[in-house]
Amino acid sequence: VENEESVSNPASIEPWNVQLIARVNQRLEQFFEDKRNAASKLTPRAHELVEAAAELTMRGGKRLRPLAIYAGYRAAASAQAPIAWDAVVTLGASIELLQTYLLIQDDWMDGDEERRGGPATHVAFARQIGDPKLAASLAILAGDIAAGFAFELLHATTFPQRRAADALRAFTSMHFEVVCGQQLDLLGHEAVTLTHHLKTGSYTVRGPVTLGALLGDASDEQLQALERFARPLGIAFQLRDDVLGTFGDTTSTGKPAGHDLREGKNTALVAEARTLLSAADRDQLDEVFGNPLASTAAVDAVTGALERSGARARVENELEQRLAEARSALSDSKCLAPEGVAMLLQLLERIALRDR
Amino acid sequence: VENEESVSNPASIEPWNVQLIARVNQRLEQFFEDKRNAASKLTPRAHELVEAAAELTMRGGKRLRPLAIYAGYRAAASAQAPIAWDAVVTLGASIELLQTYLLIQDDWMDGDEERRGGPATHVAFARQIGDPKLAASLAILAGDIAAGFAFELLHATTFPQRRAADALRAFTSMHFEVVCGQQLDLLGHEAVTLTHHLKTGSYTVRGPVTLGALLGDASDEQLQALERFARPLGIAFQLRDDVLGTFGDTTSTGKPAGHDLREGKNTALVAEARTLLSAADRDQLDEVFGNPLASTAAVDAVTGALERSGARARVENELEQRLAEARSALSDSKCLAPEGVAMLLQLLERIALRDR
Repeated sequence: VENEESVSNPASIEPWNVQLIARVNQRLEQFFEDKRNAASKLTPRAHELVEAAAELTMRGGKRLRPLAIYAGYRAAASAQAPIAWDAVVTLGASIELLQTYLLIQDDWMDGDEERRGGPATHVAFARQIGDPKLAASLAILAGDIAAGFAFELLHATTFPQRRAADALRAFTSMHFEVVCGQQLDLLGHEAVTLTHHLKTGSYTVRGPVTLGALLGDASDEQLQALERFARPLGIAFQLRDDVLGTFGDTTSTGKPAGHDLREGKNTALVAEARTLLSAADRDQLDEVFGNPLASTAAVDAVTGALERSGARARVENELEQRLAEARSALSDSKCLAPEGVAMLLQLLERIALRDR
Repeated sequence: VENEESVSNPASIEPWNVQLIARVNQRLEQFFEDKRNAASKLTPRAHELVEAAAELTMRGGKRLRPLAIYAGYRAAASAQAPIAWDAVVTLGASIELLQTYLLIQDDWMDGDEERRGGPATHVAFARQIGDPKLAASLAILAGDIAAGFAFELLHATTFPQRRAADALRAFTSMHFEVVCGQQLDLLGHEAVTLTHHLKTGSYTVRGPVTLGALLGDASDEQLQALERFARPLGIAFQLRDDVLGTFGDTTSTGKPAGHDLREGKNTALVAEARTLLSAADRDQLDEVFGNPLASTAAVDAVTGALERSGARARVENELEQRLAEARSALSDSKCLAPEGVAMLLQLLERIALRDR
């Protein structure tokens, strides 16, 4: 364990997220530097795949998942033990690379052109080489590279021996759930909450919190308490995403206005709207929904209708309920460490109040 | 370690490959059955992704990689120790799932419609749902599922403690090499041998032999000897593939006649032909190469020219040289177990003489 450090002073908890994000970014930079070198030795072109993965990873991102890992870790680990920074940061970098792989694939599957304020990976390749099919193939390969890196960093994470096999299982089952959630999303399945739970919740909150807790040698009781917290928070995360994808400030979200509507994304907002809108408003929704060429005026009208009809209020109400569930899971549990609980609550606030 | 068994009688070596393939198939069937059940509990549609991965995996395949694992294992493991069947078979199933993931992606990237005598996965989805983009996305997701399963079975393989970290590294570096080889192939890079070495050699021979040896607690000296054997054999494998893709019997290969030519595959045959063909023959090659609509007569003419010009003879000559290199790596090494060496030689024969 490198760089051991203890947080004995509660006042030092506040900037934990800034510090942790800086460490994860540093680890990622170092990792990509090593991989660029390895790639250059391997073939004359391999560095381009590494670069594509690195570029998207380092372009931004909220790094919520490493924060969730650390909060889960601190909720489970003994307050007396030195903090296993190296393992926390390596695991945090691993999950960011898993995220890169999933974003590359999602953007191509959904036909999204922008991500994190820059071109989606398949779009960036298309600008370089023209042929969109070849560009899509190269993007998928860049995603493959990122997924492989995620596993490599997972394997480089030293878990307590008792929990190592559980951690590997948690990672692969998180991956399985995300992919099955993405499938439901692509199929436009009506089970919107289940889709959210799997597609986003599993690897945004639940998976990272569980992995962090396993790193902290969590007891089964602690794991169950964290699961009761993380499950509703994961759904809340996606509900917030849905609200931002329609009502969010486009400069903050990095997505164009009306993005989710034009794309035909089966969000909780749209599901509520289908039961609440008047027949005329529903017709207008159908016109805009899944129509990339819908006019700004038409998108604005539908956005207004989603607000007026109470669809937005219902979604925000459900979001509040999920947050309340998550909060009470923490206050009910006696088995979690107080510093960790404080961090989990800060994570919840970041997720609930974020504007991107 | 389940099902321990010893092969003390040299006469019992002969049917090792039949036995091993049956065990790997059984393990895969059981694994898919478990995953189908898990998928059904997860979402109403997840079983379709599992089914797509299972269907392609169980449709056929030569299972050369599990044989390479076992031969590498037997070359390194102590003859006195009981055979770790469970680990060999689990690792063999893992690498078959890695293969499934790579085949699904390759077929979509190359626009191949057939695989193992049935539809490619993206084609099978397209027949079900129509929309080719959605079908491609679902195929990529089925590939993701297969890749995740490959890692899950890797993690379920019990390696000797001293070699566990090396094995995980060998697996991720094999994955990195395959993906970078596929990239070179898509870009039509002139470095044909390097492409072969990475795209096919790495996970067909070199990776599996190394992983098997690590399972057998190989010494560094044994690993190096096996590397000297596996590297040229991996290239030979791809050279054989190239010959079969143009001259092979289509009912054996499961690929249509002239497949590689029509697809514009940058094979060793085509690389040799570019220097050997007459100007007129080269024009005819250019007409057929990468032209899916090329007539059977035109393909036959080019195939004839590849034969007449000596391009085929040169490739088969290089193939023989690579096989000779691989054989002498075995005869030069004193550190490998004789039963394992016998199996490696049988593997070499299977690769050299296969007709599909």
